[in-house]
This record gives sequence, C-alpha cells and structure tokens, in this order.
Amino acid sequence: MKINGKHQRTVWLGQDGWSVEILDQTKLPFDVQVISLTSMEQAAKAIKDMWVRGAPLIGAVAAYGIALGMKEDASDEHLQKCYDVLIDTRPTAINLKWALDRVFAELKHKSAEDRQTIAYQLAAHIADEDVQLCESIGENGLEIIKQIASNKPEGSTVNILTHCNAGWLATVDWGTAISPIYKAHEAGIKVHVWVDETRPRNQGLLTAFELGSHGVPHTLIADNVGGHLMQHGEVDLCIVGTDRTTAKGDVCNKIGTYLKALAAHDNKVPFYVALPSPTIDWTVYDGVKEIPIEQRSGEEQSHVYGIDPSGKLSWVNTAPKGTECGNYAFDVTPAKYVTGFITERGVCEATESALSAMFADLKAPEIA
Amino acid sequence: MKINGKHQRTVWLGQDGWSVEILDQTKLPFDVQVISLTSMEQAAKAIKDMWVRGAPLIGAVAAYGIALGMKEDASDEHLQKCYDVLIDTRPTAINLKWALDRVFAELKHKSAEDRQTIAYQLAAHIADEDVQLCESIGENGLEIIKQIASNKPEGSTVNILTHCNAGWLATVDWGTAISPIYKAHEAGIKVHVWVDETRPRNQGLLTAFELGSHGVPHTLIADNVGGHLMQHGEVDLCIVGTDRTTAKGDVCNKIGTYLKALAAHDNKVPFYVALPSPTIDWTVYDGVKEIPIEQRSGEEQSHVYGIDPSGKLSWVNTAPKGTECGNYAFDVTPAKYVTGFITERGVCEATESALSAMFADLKAPEIA
Repeated sequence: MKINGKHQRTVWLGQDGWSVEILDQTKLPFDVQVISLTSMEQAAKAIKDMWVRGAPLIGAVAAYGIALGMKEDASDEHLQKCYDVLIDTRPTAINLKWALDRVFAELKHKSAEDRQTIAYQLAAHIADEDVQLCESIGENGLEIIKQIASNKPEGSTVNILTHCNAGWLATVDWGTAISPIYKAHEAGIKVHVWVDETRPRNQGLLTAFELGSHGVPHTLIADNVGGHLMQHGEVDLCIVGTDRTTAKGDVCNKIGTYLKALAAHDNKVPFYVALPSPTIDWTVYDGVKEIPIEQRSGEEQSHVYGIDPSGKLSWVNTAPKGTECGNYAFDVTPAKYVTGFITERGVCEATESALSAMFADLKAPEIA
Repeated sequence: MKINGKHQRTVWLGQDGWSVEILDQTKLPFDVQVISLTSMEQAAKAIKDMWVRGAPLIGAVAAYGIALGMKEDASDEHLQKCYDVLIDTRPTAINLKWALDRVFAELKHKSAEDRQTIAYQLAAHIADEDVQLCESIGENGLEIIKQIASNKPEGSTVNILTHCNAGWLATVDWGTAISPIYKAHEAGIKVHVWVDETRPRNQGLLTAFELGSHGVPHTLIADNVGGHLMQHGEVDLCIVGTDRTTAKGDVCNKIGTYLKALAAHDNKVPFYVALPSPTIDWTVYDGVKEIPIEQRSGEEQSHVYGIDPSGKLSWVNTAPKGTECGNYAFDVTPAKYVTGFITERGVCEATESALSAMFADLKAPEIA
C-alpha cells in the first residue's frame, strides 16, 4: 500500500535486479527506513532480528534469501547451507518452513547454472501469490463492508474496529484483516478504523501508521475502550486476523481478541476473522483446551518504546521496582463468538462444516 | 497500609501537631516522597495538581485544608475564603464538596478562637471515618474470599483480578476493591492478584506498587490478558471499584471494567464491585443510556511515563506522527454482569431491590 503517496511492498527486488529491499520494521512506526539485503546471511539476520515480521512476509524473505545464496554459490553444498541457516532463524514460523521447502524442492534437481534465475523467479512468485491471496481476502471482505454501508444512512461512515496488526506490514502487501478496509476505502466507501493499541507490544501502532500512511481515517484507542464504543453504536463491524484457526473454527490470535469478541457478541456487532487458508490447523479442534499459549518476557510489558522528549526513539520502564510482569502472547476466541471467516475463497461461517466445505481439498489426510 | 514495613496513610498530621503530610502521588509508583502542607493554599494546590487523588482522599485533604486555614486566620471572611479556594480545585469531585460543606457548617457558628481546634478534630474524624468505611468493605469482602478459599484444595492460592487502582492510595487507608485482599492477606489466606495495567493512564501501576509495598503477591498484566486467564481457571474472583453506581446497579468505573465483567460472566468467575455507599447515585437508573462518559486528552493515550534508560522519570510518545488518539475515561458495566456489591454494610446483589433494601435510609427523597 502507500507511504507518502508512493506504492510500497514490504519486500521487493532492488533496482540492480538482484539485491532485495525491505522496510526496516524495527524502526516502524517511528521511522521509515529501507534496508538492502545483499547476502543470504543478511536475509537470515533480517528474519532472526525481526527487521521483517509476519508469517507471510517471513516466507517471502526466506525465499529471496535462497536466491541471494544461489547468486553467491549455487552448489549443492551451499544450497543445503542456505536452507539450514534460514530455517534456523525463527523455528516456529510455519510459512518459513513452507517457503524454504518449496524453493529447496524446486532447486535441488536443477543444474547449478540455472538455480539463481529459478530461485529469483520462485521468490517473486511466492511474494506475488501472497499479494494475490491477501487481495482476494480484501475483495471478499469488501462485500461485507458494502452490505453494512448500504444499511446505514447514505454518506455515513462505517466504523470498523481492529486489534493488533493484520495489515500489509505483516504480509507482502494488502494485509489480511485490513485488506477489506483498503478495498472499501478505494471503492469510495467512507470508513473509519478504531485501532486497538494492542498491549503489551503495541502492534496497533503499526496499524495506525499504515492506515495513516495510506490515508485511511482512524483513531488509536486503548485496548480497554472497544466495549464502551460498541455499547454506544460506534462500531459497525470488527475485523481481526488469526495466527491459527482450529478445525472447528476457534481462533487463536493476539491476546485480547477474545475480549473484543465477547463485547461484539454482547452488543450484536458482527465480528469477522480474516483467515488465509494456510493458517487453518486441521490437527487441532478445541482451541482453548488444545493450543498452548506462548508466555514471553515480562520486559515486553514493562518497557514501552516511543519517541522521548529529545526526539529520539527510546523506552521507559513503567513497572514499579520488583514488579513481576505476566506476558501471554495470544488468546483463543471460541468459534461461537465469530460471525464468520473472510478467506481468499469467500466468506463462510465459523463452523467445522463450513470450513470443511470451503477447504475440502486442503483437508486431505496427509495434511491432517 | 505498609511501605517498607512501616504503616502509612495517604494523609496524616505532622509531628508538630499542625502541619499536614501527604504522599506525593505525582511521583508514585516510581518514587515515594512525603510533602508537608503548611498552608491552606498549599492544600488547595495539592488537590488541584493531583499530589493527592481519589475522591475520599481529596475530601480528607480538603478538610485539613480548612484546618490549616483556621490556624492562619479564623475570621468569618477567611473561613469563607478557604471554602471558596478549596471548592474550586476539582469542581466535579463529589467528596470534596461533601467534606467542605460539612466542615463549613460546623465552624460557621463557632467562635474564631475555637475554630482551629474543631477544624483539626473534624478533619481527623473525616479521615478516620473513611478508614472505617474502607475497613468494613474489607471485612465484608473477606468473607467472600474465605468462602472461595474453602472451596479450593487446602493451601492453594486464591487468584483475584482487579482493574485500575481502588486501593489505599485512592483513599485514606485500606482502599475499596483492594481492602478485602489486604484483609485476606492478613488473615493468612494465600492470595495472588492479577493487576490490570489499566491503559491509558496506567493506574494499575499504583496497584502493583501498593501491593508490592505491603507484601501481597501479584503480577502486572496487560488489560488484554484477563479473558485468557479466566478461560484457563487462573482467576477465582474479580473485584473492582466504582466511580458511580446507579439505582438499578449499573457500575460506572474505569474504562475496560466492562470487558472484564463480560469475560467473568462467560467463564462463570464471580465479579464483585466494592461499593462505598456514597458513590451510589440514586438519580440515575440506566447507566449505559444516562451516564455521559468523559473524553480526555489524547496525550494520555500517546504519552507513557516511566523510568528512562538513564534512571530518570520521563515519557515516550508512542503514537505515530499525526495519529489521532481517543481517550474515554470510564465505561458502564450493566448490573446483570455484576455478581454482587461489597459495601460497608455487607454484601448484596447487584439489583435495584437489594440496593434499596440495604440503603433504604440513604434513598430519602431529599437525596434523590
């Protein structure tokens, strides 16, 4: 999407035709800087040190990492080394393994002289595929927003609440939960987004940044506010992302999603989850019972980053001395509180049968 | 309650027998400093500039402000001036007017030579009354905690979630929602408190500070976390405070309280509100419809205070440039999501009839 009026992806090929450029997400939302990756090792560092984040984006950068590696040395040994180094960067990111396996399988039977060209083509293809998937989610979600707009007085604004960052910065372009909002904005529908800050890591700031950069009206709010807004008719629709969705439709997403789903349910506000099919985990059924929730460092709770009084990026420690901080990264929203899934194939109910029907071909025994 | 092993109130008479000492709450929870108030004007500044906060505490400091004023000049003119200066400090704090009216009515027919002594006695009495009220809430709430503890395996910990700061720092001592927790701790019941950070103003940090200072085990968490904890049986009980409770039992409290009440309801976790009877507003019935919610400066959302890397109290601006921030101070939890009220007279259901029965004498026509 756009930054300062210029269209931008989170990863793209440099003008020299071989270096790989990324937005440095460690500096966002406070500063926009581009990093040029010129080696496989640097691509690995970009993933490991979270210069890039978001599963789809990590997958694309990993694929480009192999391409950079093949430019350096396209031997069998080096191909294996590139795979090994890149796979070790973020052990739990599912798209990382998926992208690397795909590129490795394609390259291993090719001759060394062809590998570089094929690797670059495949990396570009993986990036484009993600853009296509996200754009499809946007188009399918747009229909929901159109429907809501048509039920409101003409010219009135559709207010959408979102949690965390499921925008284009977490993908190659468009995003998942925010993609329908960009589509609605482009279609001339008046939208306004309530952006949850999303403590403790404040990913809502990224959402505020990307919406602001693209020109979509929005308001940043504390995570405590959404319920009050829904009680007062100030939210027409919630759209959130998902890190993992179970076979019965339970949604594991950023901590706090569940509270917003409860408030939406209590106030009869539609609560949609943007669901790229690769995040469905057919092996898990009951999300609350079966999904272990990652506990992270308490420092993410106590230390808050921002611009200090001198204008520099810095942090403050908010916790009183000796305070123990709990940091649970995700929660599970039971399917019964989800109005529906916005997938790349269309919108479906948050039920086992609807998911199975929509993605019958993906639910093959070898995947389950 | 205790700080560094020493019992402390938020306001007390100095060793000289006439100056009034307070904890400087603008420095909390990062630094503990005592300020000695030696004039009525200084007491007014303490209230206006929020060196003290919390309605009951403000009332007590205002009463002591009159006493300081009477020491300076006990004439009719100066009594009136003291009243006028002090009432102007925080126009909306109900306890402020109540305390000042009470002291003024008592003094105006007394001779100038008696006024100083009477004013100090009355201020001490008002402070003690608040302590007594809060302690009664503690004792009544203790019974609930005892009951819950008795239903758990012997020796196991009772986990209590609270939101905002309804502790002794907002009163003269004991607090409201935290008072039962102190009582349980003193009774030897193993308690652990989940402390909501309470964005945007982070009053949970005060709660973490006072619990830590008194030695009550606790964990600071983002406001997003409570629902997840309740889903997993990690919360036995919620206790929160109230800024205003309607005749039918709707609770207006710090923003985000409603979301925790929804999660408690969804997970069958008891959700109690500590309710000092002076905060019941018999003139309001439907809280969501009738209570206007204060919107405050967006800077309270964007600017976060804490200790910077150099060890100094400072702030960072977390919002991307140009981001609009919404800041709603309170929300309303409908009575149906409140398990019961812990009042100074006992525990009652969150219903119109139960409240009326418990406080029939307060519901006189001249109050309504």
